[in-house]
Formats: sequence, structure tokens, C-alpha cells
Amino acid sequence: MTRPVLYLEDLVPGQTFESGSHTLTAAEIKEFAARFDPQYFHLDEEAAKASLFGGLAASGWNVAAVTMRLMVESSPIAGGLIGAGAEIAWPRPTRPGDTLRVVTEVIEVTPSRSRPERGMALVRSTTLNQRDEVVQTMASRMVVPRRVPAETGK
Amino acid sequence: MTRPVLYLEDLVPGQTFESGSHTLTAAEIKEFAARFDPQYFHLDEEAAKASLFGGLAASGWNVAAVTMRLMVESSPIAGGLIGAGAEIAWPRPTRPGDTLRVVTEVIEVTPSRSRPERGMALVRSTTLNQRDEVVQTMASRMVVPRRVPAETGK
Repeated sequence: MTRPVLYLEDLVPGQTFESGSHTLTAAEIKEFAARFDPQYFHLDEEAAKASLFGGLAASGWNVAAVTMRLMVESSPIAGGLIGAGAEIAWPRPTRPGDTLRVVTEVIEVTPSRSRPERGMALVRSTTLNQRDEVVQTMASRMVVPRRVPAETGK
Repeated sequence: MTRPVLYLEDLVPGQTFESGSHTLTAAEIKEFAARFDPQYFHLDEEAAKASLFGGLAASGWNVAAVTMRLMVESSPIAGGLIGAGAEIAWPRPTRPGDTLRVVTEVIEVTPSRSRPERGMALVRSTTLNQRDEVVQTMASRMVVPRRVPAETGK
């Protein structure tokens, strides 16, 4: 791929990145859960029917991890995607066989006051399933390098 | 284990749960990254030296996933840990060999107005390394069932 790499100066509010897609299988959901979120509604189709989810559902952290993978592949930020923190919500469950994709939008770009070589970008990532229903929203603060360091003092 | 299961009525602000610990190896960090966050500073010790992290660091989502595992094992909430959303931050990197543990504190307990059988708990989870340095903070909103449904109607 020869897509251009984006520095802080190249980011503008409203700019979007669209990811490829990933289909989350029941096997992947259970494997992730066994390792990181071993609860019956993420592990066992039959038992999950009696849960709040009414059937097998992916761990939210599995959805977050798949979202990160899709973002890394589709957001050409210089130096990589380095998050300082995020606000995340899962408005509906992700089910076995759901095909996820992510739309990431630049919300705010802020040069650092103390670090001339970098700044912060606030981005909002929306993870959608194959019916275009939102399964995760995330607002993240990312550290982004500048192409040209800001002028410092005198 | 015979620890009691806690319902919404059993949760009080200030209550804490302390987890066991997990040591995150370089192999685990790289395996998670290869799958979900394939960036050089999570994959290659040598290359990572030139990054913002100055050395191999775990993906934040790997820290979040390990935190979830430790919370599931140590927070005996009835019906399991079901998060509606979370605010998460990584104040410092997690390194190969770091031993993580989690302290979870109940912040607020709110019975649902529309659902007599459940409510929400706001909990704050702090993930610490072996030097008691904070590597992740997380505030999560969780759905918690009531032991006795609230009175409804008049």
C-alpha cells in the first residue's frame, strides 16, 4: 500500500477513515472469552439464552480489540495509533457471524503546548455490523507527531 | 469457591474488590498485538526502542482484556459483569514481565426507574503493576440484577 502517512498538520475535523471488515465467528468469540472474559454468555450458546443477552454475545473487549485491528489497518497516522485513553460504549450486542467495520472521524486537533513535536487528536470511531447497526462507539485521544515541529519561544 | 454472590442491594459506595495477579509476558504481548493491534511498538523489542514508548509495550487493549479477566475472577456480581460502557485511560505503558492486579471500587449504585428487576452500578477499576504504579484506570457502568424486584406502580 502506498497511502500517504498523516501528521498532525494533515488532520482536520470532519475527516473520516473507513475500515475493511471482519466477521466475528462463534469460535473467535469463545476463544477470546475463555482467555479474557470467561462468562457463560460469551462461552456457551445454550446457557447464554437465559442471560440478559438472550444468546451468545461477544465480549465488549473482543469488539474493542477487533475495532482496533480495523482502525490500525485503515487510519494512516504517522507513528501509529497511540491512544492515551478512550470513552467506549456498547449499545447492542455483537453476535456470532456479525461482520464489523469501523468509521473513524477526526473531531478535534490540538497541538501540544509543551511538546513542539506533537499534539493530540480526538477521534470518534463507530463500529457497525452488517445491518449498519452501531455495536460500539468510541471517542479516543491519540498522540500524533507533527511533520514540522512548532516554533518554540524566542 | 463459596463467596457470596452480590445483588444490587448488596453493593455500597466505597466497597472494594481486590483481584489476583497476572504477569504479562513478551510472548503474550506480541501474540495479542499480532492479532488485534499489529503495530511495531507492540511486536518488536528492537524496533520499539525508537518509538514513543522507548521499548516494547503492551497494547492498551491487552491491558484492558487482562483487567477484565482479573475483574471477572474477583468481583462476585450476580449475573456476571455486564458493562454498558467505560471510560478508560493508560497513564503509563505496561512492559513485558509486569505483574498486574486490579482494585475495583463501587462508586455509585442506581436502581433502574423503568426496570424493577435491575439497576446500574458505577465502578472504578485501577490496574496496578508490581511497583504499585497505575497502568490503567477505568470507570464502568454495569448492569446489576436486584435480589428483590422494586415495588412497581402505586
